[in-house]
Amino acid sequence: MRVLGVDPGLTRCGIGVVEGVAGRPLSMLGAGVVRTAAEGQLGDRLVAVERGIEEWLDAHRPELVAVERVFSQHNVRTVMGTAQASAVAVLCAARRGLPVALHTPSEVKAAVTGSGRAGKAQVGAMVTRLLRLDAPPKPADAADALALAICHIWRAPAQNRLQRAVAAHHATKGRSA
Amino acid sequence: MRVLGVDPGLTRCGIGVVEGVAGRPLSMLGAGVVRTAAEGQLGDRLVAVERGIEEWLDAHRPELVAVERVFSQHNVRTVMGTAQASAVAVLCAARRGLPVALHTPSEVKAAVTGSGRAGKAQVGAMVTRLLRLDAPPKPADAADALALAICHIWRAPAQNRLQRAVAAHHATKGRSA
Repeated sequence: MRVLGVDPGLTRCGIGVVEGVAGRPLSMLGAGVVRTAAEGQLGDRLVAVERGIEEWLDAHRPELVAVERVFSQHNVRTVMGTAQASAVAVLCAARRGLPVALHTPSEVKAAVTGSGRAGKAQVGAMVTRLLRLDAPPKPADAADALALAICHIWRAPAQNRLQRAVAAHHATKGRSA
Repeated sequence: MRVLGVDPGLTRCGIGVVEGVAGRPLSMLGAGVVRTAAEGQLGDRLVAVERGIEEWLDAHRPELVAVERVFSQHNVRTVMGTAQASAVAVLCAARRGLPVALHTPSEVKAAVTGSGRAGKAQVGAMVTRLLRLDAPPKPADAADALALAICHIWRAPAQNRLQRAVAAHHATKGRSA
């Protein structure tokens, strides 16, 4: 399974591509950031984010895109830019017919470190270890995007089992009705 | 001047196209909403909003797109959808090289009613009068989008004067430096 993770942001949008399946060693296929100038016009910045994400999708052809779920409660000052960059990422994926998964920051931290309240350094250290890298990916946004992709690969089997169970339950109810 | 106003929303994205110049009667060229199903996947909904806005841009070829400026303080529950829909609107305009203007809800209300705290009904009544319509545009999102376009046309001369004054001031400073 090849997953492109996106840590959305207008100034720095982290991107990380991971391949693998749950229970086996994972591979990093690429990581980086799409940057836009903070003093730029909003429209130009969104177009630049779109172009950057399209280039990553073209280069790596993921099967799924995992995007951080944005909450309005966090970072009130930056949440608008985050929400807008995440909309562009989700739009780019959906336009190609790719499934999009949203994971919260605490789900991602818990998946890679065991704690939903882990710090950036801890997440970076675990991403380095799990992907068998020589050093933590820089900047932190790229490491966070890789963590999102890892989180998705590891959570996917549980989510699929849950979906099958729900579907089976509905099928049973349908027959008994 | 032909302006396409967007009152962003994921469930109902209001669109209104107005033509005219400040100080003369204005004309409505069209108004409506782009709707997406609340139970749909986020990606599908953003793609539908993009497609809808592109159709309006193709049909009316505005010179400028005016979008409501989203604040994270308001409507915390719906602000994410609003921010994401506004990102799509701004992206569609910027991709075509169209200038994008952002106006706050209170600027829009003040422009069309004289009060930044006017209610929906008052805004609808003034939009009806200013565009010489037989009845208020429905739904309210379409009326709000028309109000945004009117606000922009009326504010543009003042903004242009301001920009010229700022540019002249900088030019003077540059000569005296």
